Order: sequence, then structure tokens, then C-alpha cells
Amino acid sequence: MTMPVLVAGRWRDESAAAGSFHALNPADRTPLADAFPVSPEATIEEALGAGRDAARALRSATPGALARFLEACAEQIEARADALVEMAHRETALPREPRLRSVELPRTTGQLRQAARAARERSHTQPTLDTQANIRSMREPLGGVILVFGPNNFPFAFNAMMGGDFAAAIAAGNPVLAKANPGHPGTTRLLAEAAHAALAEAGLPSSTVQLVYHVAADLGLKLVAHPLVAATAFTGSRKAGLALKAAADRAGKPIYLEMSSVNPVFLLPGAVEERADEVAAELFQSCSLGAGQFCTNPGLSVVIEGPASDGLLKSLQDLFETRPPGTLLGAAGPSNIAASLKTLVEAGATVLAGGADAGGAGFAFANTLLRVSGEQFLRKAEALQTEAFGTVHLMVFAHDLDEMVAVADRFEGNLTGCIYSHKGGRDDEAYRLVAEALRPRVGRLLNDKMPTGVAVSPAMNHGGPFPATGHPGFTAVGIPASLARFTALRCYDNVRQERLPPELRDENPTGAWRLVDGTWTRDAVRPRPA
Amino acid sequence: MTMPVLVAGRWRDESAAAGSFHALNPADRTPLADAFPVSPEATIEEALGAGRDAARALRSATPGALARFLEACAEQIEARADALVEMAHRETALPREPRLRSVELPRTTGQLRQAARAARERSHTQPTLDTQANIRSMREPLGGVILVFGPNNFPFAFNAMMGGDFAAAIAAGNPVLAKANPGHPGTTRLLAEAAHAALAEAGLPSSTVQLVYHVAADLGLKLVAHPLVAATAFTGSRKAGLALKAAADRAGKPIYLEMSSVNPVFLLPGAVEERADEVAAELFQSCSLGAGQFCTNPGLSVVIEGPASDGLLKSLQDLFETRPPGTLLGAAGPSNIAASLKTLVEAGATVLAGGADAGGAGFAFANTLLRVSGEQFLRKAEALQTEAFGTVHLMVFAHDLDEMVAVADRFEGNLTGCIYSHKGGRDDEAYRLVAEALRPRVGRLLNDKMPTGVAVSPAMNHGGPFPATGHPGFTAVGIPASLARFTALRCYDNVRQERLPPELRDENPTGAWRLVDGTWTRDAVRPRPA
Repeated sequence: MTMPVLVAGRWRDESAAAGSFHALNPADRTPLADAFPVSPEATIEEALGAGRDAARALRSATPGALARFLEACAEQIEARADALVEMAHRETALPREPRLRSVELPRTTGQLRQAARAARERSHTQPTLDTQANIRSMREPLGGVILVFGPNNFPFAFNAMMGGDFAAAIAAGNPVLAKANPGHPGTTRLLAEAAHAALAEAGLPSSTVQLVYHVAADLGLKLVAHPLVAATAFTGSRKAGLALKAAADRAGKPIYLEMSSVNPVFLLPGAVEERADEVAAELFQSCSLGAGQFCTNPGLSVVIEGPASDGLLKSLQDLFETRPPGTLLGAAGPSNIAASLKTLVEAGATVLAGGADAGGAGFAFANTLLRVSGEQFLRKAEALQTEAFGTVHLMVFAHDLDEMVAVADRFEGNLTGCIYSHKGGRDDEAYRLVAEALRPRVGRLLNDKMPTGVAVSPAMNHGGPFPATGHPGFTAVGIPASLARFTALRCYDNVRQERLPPELRDENPTGAWRLVDGTWTRDAVRPRPA
Repeated sequence: MTMPVLVAGRWRDESAAAGSFHALNPADRTPLADAFPVSPEATIEEALGAGRDAARALRSATPGALARFLEACAEQIEARADALVEMAHRETALPREPRLRSVELPRTTGQLRQAARAARERSHTQPTLDTQANIRSMREPLGGVILVFGPNNFPFAFNAMMGGDFAAAIAAGNPVLAKANPGHPGTTRLLAEAAHAALAEAGLPSSTVQLVYHVAADLGLKLVAHPLVAATAFTGSRKAGLALKAAADRAGKPIYLEMSSVNPVFLLPGAVEERADEVAAELFQSCSLGAGQFCTNPGLSVVIEGPASDGLLKSLQDLFETRPPGTLLGAAGPSNIAASLKTLVEAGATVLAGGADAGGAGFAFANTLLRVSGEQFLRKAEALQTEAFGTVHLMVFAHDLDEMVAVADRFEGNLTGCIYSHKGGRDDEAYRLVAEALRPRVGRLLNDKMPTGVAVSPAMNHGGPFPATGHPGFTAVGIPASLARFTALRCYDNVRQERLPPELRDENPTGAWRLVDGTWTRDAVRPRPA
């Protein structure tokens, strides 16, 4: 028997499953005991019908009920932490400590609680009032099911169930249909049980949260274009993301994608001369975090040729060679990395360390360091930006600053870009030139800091130009900004006071920040003299 | 000889034109004297190359220079008002007074001045500061050329040159390549001359504004996907819009579309009983404004059967039959309306007034009123939402309130939806049900007011769900909100103070409204104690 799906408010067996699958333990390559169903179209139709009703019911849910649900989610996760950590460890081989229990789990509950605060506080609705013309607008829930596809690399924090997209979609007032990542279906099931319990506590419609584990690829494409789906959030590979994007675009459905990124790091000459060893250590640490399987993993750095950068490379090579490789998340990891390496080498990169499957009990690939000249990069810029999802790093040696700037000018859209520069200002002119070329190509620009930490800050942008994402105006991390993806701009023109949503009424009962006649304020609108 | 194009900072003859065309005077169907070129791909490539350089140069343009340019645009338009009004009248047959000179021209200069204020004031960049983590983000120019396709129905206010999209793109800091509407190329040329003169005054890069009059359809598709195009704004037909959308989507390029809308008006029983004649007059006035060629023209209304709505229909029929039809904007007008009518009649609608080409000296179609039952609407809901771009109105007679709500539930995405209700509250329950169904389907919901006035208010939403537009989160009218389409979200993580854009520096030199640690303020960030 396969595990039950959560559809239309209840856990039920998938009696007409289109197939079944097992997750693997990446640490020993053995299949785990539980079987999970591949859901057929009939299940999806049922879920979307239930989701439509939930979307309608949620329109009259109070902000307090939404917030309470998100808080209860966080509490339920905490109450189930042992089981969750154990299951996630088994399905992903990510370390229990500190990663799963002390980093990712608190991040997940923290996101849920921030989302709860946003739902209660209402400023994310961006109420805008023109009191003279009596025209008022705000961001409202999209009014349908949000479909969330989660990635393999964050079993908690970006899980389709309870992860960042889930928290944002719910806080904005929408129901969620989660499609588990097949790498960690058991973790996703446990999170769904937690969410289901939280729903009951908060009194939200029972179909506010639904879960399937897997669907056939063609059904996935149908799903993102389905009339009852309001929008999709997807984090995963570029190939899958582009296929879903094409299907959603054809139907005029919003889809938010977080696809791929090599996250270039520019190491300016002054910084390399000033602190080569320190930079090498930081770079290796960031490259190897989570066995290199982070969206913001720095896959490429650019230096200018010279003794100092040779020294940096030497230190880095040492680290790549001597540190043990991490366990990869799944069976496809090593072969995907090998395929990417093949592309990089064919485009002219030289392997300095690693380069092969690491063998051993679990899925692993040797820490791999490559180098290429700036001239060659410019010749094969597209191929040399191939993402290898693991501890793989390509160092580009530019002949001079002009070539470094030319390299910066060839990057496609990335989530992040870093520039390390001399602390005393010796790199300031180089910084100006590199930053000017790099800035429009990345969603987040960092100074003297590696990109792998993605703080859940209101000012964060975990986004960027295509093909890092599908649209340069949205972020997947950072509250309240990430909620905007799951809202529609809605205007009320000459609508009677008592018919307005609370956020737009003169008295501002929600206390949200509002843009009233050009001024941001939390005050009520004073009645005009009659 | 054909008229010159404005490319790379200068007016030049299109020596290798792919063809030429003349505009028509819609009032007498005669071609106007001036010939305009169809630009070949080489011209486009040259323009996009120049635009890329302009985009880069604009990054260091001061807000004051952008604002000064937009103000100079308004002044130049005012100085050339006589010639502009005359030319636009000849090319569109829209009345000189009040429409062109006293309504549309001041609206256009007003938009430019509002955009200038926004460019200077900077709040549209939405600076968000997390001072503790030193993460800061804002909306920046997209960093490439914005391609604007203007519609036929607003020769000034939505002209690709100097219209709403132009003003928003420039105020956000981007260069514009305008593709004139072939219905009014001469007006567009005069506006480009005004913009060209204004550029010199403001000292902006000379390729900030460029103009071509026409390109072949396949080149248009190539253009929206071009690597040097940052985004496209299009206002026009659904057919052309969907073709451009598909091309842009495939390339991962943002495209903002304003395509089509029937703008349903729900007339609740109490309002009809209370003021049938008044409502009929308002409805006819809105239907016939600009000969019915407004994006927000009310193409459909819904009433409940009964003596009062029969009376309303009678009044309306009188108006449709006795008032003279307006002149349509072009030769395609009458045939497009006839084709839409054919679809409506085949789907079961009955023509009560008009229904045929009005003959006469100019392009005209008789004011046309149709009716259909709610039952039939539900049977053929898609066909009966066919837009007829003219003074054509379909009245749907629902059997009862339930059927009226069911009708509301079947609308595809629209720019607007109106509900007229009894002033004393007799319709309140009906309102609740109809509004609940209608609200998520329209960008702007109106009470007791027709949709054709689109105020340039910060709270306006001239947008809505697909297929009215391409994305429910953006508006084409309303400043500063309309600028967001032409910006990217960009984050600065740990970036040194002196390297930050002014909007993000502690001292807030621009004085913009900023979200600092959760509070909207125009104050500087106080330095932390060391």
C-alpha cells in the first residue's frame, strides 16, 4: 500500500494511482521502506475543485485566522521536530546537526512566524488611497489555488509544504496545493500532517492545504495551465522550470521560477593581495556548504592573473583536494555533475582537482576545481556558465581588468554576484567598472561576503533576471516582499465605505501602513467636512 | 520620399525601407499626403545598439535630469499644441474640441508632469532597508531598451511616444524605442520631434528616445525577444498581443499587455427601479464615448428580467437608435465590428438597434444594441464575451439573482466591472453576491459609475487578470505604480555605504519614502553607536 495523499481536507488512499515510487537514502543508496503514489488526473481535479472552494472561503477568513494557522504550523513543526529531522536526514543525508535541527528547522518556523506577522499586520496589501477621487487599491489574494513545486535541496525551508513559498502564499490569503519533491516525500508527508493539525486549530477551510507526492511530467504541464490554478511557484532545475513556464505562459497563468545560477564571485586584485588565504577559506566553505547544492552556491570566480591569484588558487586547490566530499541528495547528483563537467571541459576548462564520482557508500562526487582563461571564457561564455550542482568551482583568470569587466558583461541572469575588494580602497576604480557591468545581471550584489547565506530579511532579494528566475521584479525570500507574487492588484473606484475591504476603509481598522494621498501612514483618514 | 525615423539620436531617412504606408483620414476615407517607412531589421538593430548605450548612460543620469526631460516634453507638447491637435484630428477624426485639445492633450502633459515628480521624488524605487543585517534593496531601471507599441485609440495619451507607457518607462530610468501606431504616424512624428527637442534641453543621452513607424509582423515578434530589449509594453488587440506575448515569453522577456475587455456592468434591480432613465443615459454616454473605442468601454450589461429592466432597455434602445454614430478610427473598424457581431448573433444574441455599417463619408458603424437571455449567456459564455470595438452593447437578461451571479461567475479577466445598486441599500444582499463573484475577475470594481474615465491617480488600476492583461499584478495607469513594470528588484548585501545608490544610503539624500526596519519614513538612518 502506498502512503495516503491529502486531498479535499482528508488523508485518503490513492486507489487509482498512476504508479508508485520510493525515496532513496543517499548515504547508502538503498530505497526507503515507504511507497508513495504517483497521483492521476482525477485526484488533481478533485484537489483543484476543493481548492477553488477553499480560495472562496478564505476571502472571508480573518487576518487573525491566517496568522494563527501559520503560527500553529510552526508549533506543530517544533512538536514534531525529532521525527522530522530523522526522516529528512534519512531522505536527504543532510546532517542532523547543525544543518537540519539547528539551522533549517528554525529557519522554517521563523519564516512561518514572519509570514504570520505579515498576515496580521496587513502592510503587504499596500493599500493606496486617493481620498479626493475616492479611488482605492490594494493587493488581494489571487483567488485560486497556488501550486507549489519544491526543490530537492531544502527539505524543510523550501519544502512545497511549509516552506517559503507555502508561507508566502498562505499569508497572502491563498490555498496551496503542494507537489512534494520526490527526493523527500516522507518529510513532506510529516510536514503535511503538521499543517493538517494546524488547520484544525486555526479553523481555516479544510482544503486550504493539500498534498500530492508526484505526478507524471505531462500532467504537471497541464496543471500549471489549469483554469483553477491561480499561480505556480517552482524551485528546481532549469530544464523542468522552462517546460513548466512555457505551459503556464500559454495559458496566461503567472508562474514564479527559481531555476539556476552560477553566482559569480569577482575577486579584485587588492583583495587577493590583501587576504588570499582568508578568501580561499571563505570561498571553499561557501562552495561546499550542503555539498554545493545551494541555489546561491558560488560556481565561478574571476581573478586577474598574477602571483597573488596563483597563490589563492593554490590554497583553494589544497582545500578542494583535502576536504572530504559531502553526500549528494540523490542518485542523479553524480551523473548530473559529470554531464556539466563534460560541458565545461569541452568548452576549454581544465580540471585541477576532483573531476570524478567519489565512489563510497553514498552518492558523492569529488570536490572539483577547474580553471579557464578569460579569453577562453569570452569565446565560450554560454557553455562556461553551465551550472554543476555540487562542490564544483570554475576559476576564470582574466588577463587584465578590461578582460575582467568584459567577462562580467557576459553573464546571463543570476541570483547573486559578489565582489571582494581591498579594505583600504585600492580596488575602488576596478569595483566601479565591475559593479557597473555586473549589477543589472544579478538580483543580489554582495561585497566581501559569500552568497550562500540568504537571510529572511524584508530587504532580501532571492530573485534576479531570466534565466535565474522568470521575472526580475519578484523575490522568493523576504517577507513581506515574497507575498506580492501571490496577490493581484485590485482597485475600488467610488465604492461605498461599508463595502470596502477593511484595509481601504477610512478608519484603517487593520492598522496597516497605507499610502494615503502620497504619504505613508498608519493613521485613519480624517472625515472631510460635509 | 518617406518621413525620416528617429534612430541613434538623429532624424534620418530610411534608405532601405521594407515598404511604406500612408495614414487615412477616417472622416473621408482618403489617404493623407505623407508617406511613412516600414523599417527593416538593420534599423532596429541600430536602434537597439544605441538604446543599450543610452540605458547604460542613464544609470548615471540624475533624477533631476530625468524629471527635467519629462517636464520639457510637456512644455514642448504645449508649444506645439495647434499642430498636434490638427494632425491628430486629421489622422483619427477625433474631435478637436473638447476631446483632443481640452481632454487628451492636458491628460498627456499631466501624466508627463506626474512622472517627472515621481522621477524626482524617488519613492517609486521602494527602498527597503534592514539596517541590522545591512541588506538593502530597491527597484532600479531594467537596464535596457523598453519597446512600446501604442494603440490606435489615444493619439496623445497612450501614444508610444509621450504616452503613459513612455512616461513610466522614462521616469523609471529607461530608454524607449517607440513603434508608432500606423493609424497616426504623423502625430507620433510630431510628438517625437517634441521629445527630441526636450532631450537636448535636459541633457540626456540622445538615444534615450527613438522612433520607428512600422515593422513587419515577424520582425515585431523578433523584437520583443531581442537580447537588447529589456521589456515591452503593448496596448492593442488580443490577437496581436497574444502573438507578441508568446514570443517574449519564450525568450524570458517581461511583456506588459493591455489587450481587451468587455467591462461588464451589473445593474441591480433596486437601481433599475430607482433610476432607469438616468442609468440608461449614463450607459449610452459611456458606450458611445470616442465612438465606443475605449479599452474600458462597457460592452455588456446584466439586468434581471422585469418591467423596470424592460423600461431601461427601451430608453437605451431609443438612445442607440436616435443618436448619430461616431467616426471610427480606421478602415478596419467597421469590418472588425461586423465580425464580432456575427459571433455574438451566432451565439444567440438578438440585434435590437443598428447592426450594420453606417455608410456615409467616414468610417462608421451604426450604434448597435443587442440582447440575450442569461440562460443563453451561460450556454455560450465565451462567444458572448467577444469584444466589439465600437458603440456596441449587449444586454444580458438574467432570470433571477442566482442566474445573475452565475453570469458574473463566468467572466474572463476584465479591466473593469461596475455594479449599480439602490442608493438606499435595497440591493445590499444582491451586491454582496455579485461583487464576490465579480471582484477577482476585474482589475477595477466601480460602484454607480461608468468605467470609461480612467483617472491618473496613484490608486488607479488599469490592469486585471488575463486575458485583459498578461499579469494581474501590474497597472498601466497611475503614478508611481505604473513605473514598477519597468524596474527590477535589486538587493545590496553588505555593500559599502559610498557604493550604494543614493536611495539606499543612511542619510537618504533623495528624501524618498523608505521602509526602514519595518517603518515607512523619509528620515535618515541614525548612525549606530560605535
